[in-house]
Amino acid sequence: MGELADLLKRIEPIDETMCQAAREKWDQVGKPLRSLGRLEDMVIQLAGVTRNLNPKVDKKAVLIFCADNGVVEEGVTQTGSQVTAIVSENFTKGIATINSFAKVAGAKVFPIDIGICKDMSQVQGMVHRKIAFGTANMTKGPAMFREQCEQAILVGIHMVKELKEQGYNLFVTGEMGIGNTSTSSAMLSVLEEVPVSQVTGRGAGLSSKGLEHKIKVIEQAILVNHPKKDDVLDVMSKVGGYDICGIAGAFLGGAIYQVPVLVDGFISAIGANCAIRLAPFCKDYIFVSHCSAEPAGQLALKAIGKEAYIHAGMCLGEGTGGLLGAKLLDFALAAYNEVADFEQADFGHYELLK
Amino acid sequence: MGELADLLKRIEPIDETMCQAAREKWDQVGKPLRSLGRLEDMVIQLAGVTRNLNPKVDKKAVLIFCADNGVVEEGVTQTGSQVTAIVSENFTKGIATINSFAKVAGAKVFPIDIGICKDMSQVQGMVHRKIAFGTANMTKGPAMFREQCEQAILVGIHMVKELKEQGYNLFVTGEMGIGNTSTSSAMLSVLEEVPVSQVTGRGAGLSSKGLEHKIKVIEQAILVNHPKKDDVLDVMSKVGGYDICGIAGAFLGGAIYQVPVLVDGFISAIGANCAIRLAPFCKDYIFVSHCSAEPAGQLALKAIGKEAYIHAGMCLGEGTGGLLGAKLLDFALAAYNEVADFEQADFGHYELLK
Repeated sequence: MGELADLLKRIEPIDETMCQAAREKWDQVGKPLRSLGRLEDMVIQLAGVTRNLNPKVDKKAVLIFCADNGVVEEGVTQTGSQVTAIVSENFTKGIATINSFAKVAGAKVFPIDIGICKDMSQVQGMVHRKIAFGTANMTKGPAMFREQCEQAILVGIHMVKELKEQGYNLFVTGEMGIGNTSTSSAMLSVLEEVPVSQVTGRGAGLSSKGLEHKIKVIEQAILVNHPKKDDVLDVMSKVGGYDICGIAGAFLGGAIYQVPVLVDGFISAIGANCAIRLAPFCKDYIFVSHCSAEPAGQLALKAIGKEAYIHAGMCLGEGTGGLLGAKLLDFALAAYNEVADFEQADFGHYELLK
Repeated sequence: MGELADLLKRIEPIDETMCQAAREKWDQVGKPLRSLGRLEDMVIQLAGVTRNLNPKVDKKAVLIFCADNGVVEEGVTQTGSQVTAIVSENFTKGIATINSFAKVAGAKVFPIDIGICKDMSQVQGMVHRKIAFGTANMTKGPAMFREQCEQAILVGIHMVKELKEQGYNLFVTGEMGIGNTSTSSAMLSVLEEVPVSQVTGRGAGLSSKGLEHKIKVIEQAILVNHPKKDDVLDVMSKVGGYDICGIAGAFLGGAIYQVPVLVDGFISAIGANCAIRLAPFCKDYIFVSHCSAEPAGQLALKAIGKEAYIHAGMCLGEGTGGLLGAKLLDFALAAYNEVADFEQADFGHYELLK
């Protein structure tokens, strides 16, 4: 754990002094105090993350970690693993849902092959970071080696570093990987000590019978692997996926390079959970957006101590929910930066609305 | 009730056939079925409202109904009535919170003087529709005459008509009026038969003692006026305000001219409630956005049978929350219009993700 351990040591708490300065700046904005509620908190947190009283999020990136999961051969999904490659390639063509959302949000989409089971090396517009051709079937043993898990985390960290150097100042985490609600449910069950049946849903549309089978398969994977709850890398390696590891890395990258990283939905929240376990200070660098319609969506957020802003019953992934949150931040920053202060607003006495 | 009654007669249900066509169009979009959740419902409703399978909301207007309330002389607010005129003028200068939000959302702000207690006739950029110089003090008798109430409703209806003729295709309702949480709480208490104490909050920052006094004043207004629950115009006239009447008119205008109108927060939801009582079909023309942090924010939405998408603890008014919802609709429409269908997305079999 050489490089990763060294990087994790660099993570410091967010800058509370800058948070306080941002709080005071909000109190000068000509509107009833605290009337923008948690939108104000977003900006305060952002100031602390970036060490900047006037932070910008005008260059947004969506990091979509694409990977396959060996457990799919157990029949836990509605579609086959081949769909991961197809949809991932669609991201590069600009014809997927996240592409349409990115246009509205003013973001750029980066599909990352971190473990697709098909050779993607000829696909233009894909970021090539393949660790392996999918994970192994976790019902028969560990999904990956611990070294692969660390490598995948480093992919996420390095993506944030590279793109920050290119001027990107906000990151949304997304994923594409058939079978990744199974790995996410397995991980959440282990990490939060909740029965599998309580954290498992229908993914992209399983029947009730399919759901029952999925639960049994996940229970089997946990039984076979004995993941150690207090060793998150062990849990990630045994019942996780490369996408989740990459996402965890992106959150760690946010904390290392002091840029905001947003949670998307259920799977992404599991990645955030891992990042916080690897580096507790990471928590305050993480922003959330919506609450996934997956049954454990709410629990996955609660486990990282965060509360969603948007409840729209979405469960598409790809980073779609995260981009909605990024847009909320645009609104919050516009008010924070552009609205007249009490004097300019001609309220006469500063105290009037206090 | 001549002109108003005639206009109300024109309101028809939204077009269910078009809703169904939109549902079917969503099912062709290359993504897991229903995975955009209630964002999909927004578009389905919009198709039914506009009678258009490919509706647009690319020209957005924020209608801010600005008015004063006589009840302010009872000391129910933190600031004096003069602040209504100041903030309303700030809308025309582009320095208020709603202006900053409108820039992000791509909307135009229309501040409407429907009852400010100061002469605003020289203020450029204000829409001049003053019914009176504020309402009368509702603790001593009706806030306005029934004729004035109808007139104010017509202002809202006509605003939507005029702006639709100018190409606007989405409307957000906002308000500015010191004292208007008092009138809104009074109205909600009467219309929904809930004790005043359960629907009254601190507005823009009252102390606990101030809140207690506010509750007593509202109870007094209801006691003095005996508003008739089943005659919504009676309730609006006796314990309402010109801003609420104008907002109700905007929602009715949406139903008459078949364009979407969005609820902002607490006060705006009361206006929507009135509109639905005047014309029940109006309900399906109304879109919601966030849930206000006012204690009765949730109840105000429940009373009109709607569920918020955004929970951010906001309570600023002006239409700020409504614009966040308008942006969600932009995301939803982008996916609906731009994402590849199953065949283009190369999923091979259309059934794959079904």
